[in-house]
Amino acid sequence: MSKKSVPVVNIADRLAGFSELWSQKTVAVLNDYEVKLAKLRGEFVWHSHEDTDELFLVLSGRLTIQLRDGDVVLAPGELFVVPRGVEHCPLADEETAILLFEPAGTMNTGDAGGPLTKAAELVS
Amino acid sequence: MSKKSVPVVNIADRLAGFSELWSQKTVAVLNDYEVKLAKLRGEFVWHSHEDTDELFLVLSGRLTIQLRDGDVVLAPGELFVVPRGVEHCPLADEETAILLFEPAGTMNTGDAGGPLTKAAELVS
Repeated sequence: MSKKSVPVVNIADRLAGFSELWSQKTVAVLNDYEVKLAKLRGEFVWHSHEDTDELFLVLSGRLTIQLRDGDVVLAPGELFVVPRGVEHCPLADEETAILLFEPAGTMNTGDAGGPLTKAAELVS
Repeated sequence: MSKKSVPVVNIADRLAGFSELWSQKTVAVLNDYEVKLAKLRGEFVWHSHEDTDELFLVLSGRLTIQLRDGDVVLAPGELFVVPRGVEHCPLADEETAILLFEPAGTMNTGDAGGPLTKAAELVS
């Protein structure tokens, strides 16, 4: 059979399509969950998500997820789930690309709000 | 702060920990969803999942997801979501490693059943 024209997501291609930092790009939807890509550099804000766990998978660079009782350091090919309600603050000394998996509508700053709050953008 | 002793999942390490084909290994849980790894070679069975979409991300090798109206071919770093209810049959000419994301309890053979049916195994 011929190759279908379907929304295959090539992660590298999608990452090449944007350069903004701390801006989540939704690249796939699975039921009521979303797969999002983001580029990070610097320190985000401390926040938590009361209603959901949050999955971080590092694609390139290095991500430190600061937790109140210690840091989690992720290299490319490593993933970590921040449990719901657990305060965390992402930190990247170098530009770092990540894949996020979480329910649609999860806000990047969780309970913290503030100027960095931004809804994920659906990209094709 | 010190590095926490937490369940960071190194995908390459986890893949190195098993060699069985068509056996899903759950490496992380996010709410009521699971991140699973599997190694494939050959052709699976045609099946569908009536209640859920299913995400395939290829880590190494090459995966063809046969659909009734065409094939989707995925290289490493590419992902695709099979919509709920859509019949599909994975096929890998070479050994291929994938990451799956779907609700906990989703059976590998969906509505088809048969000898290849196997629950995902939780590995640490």
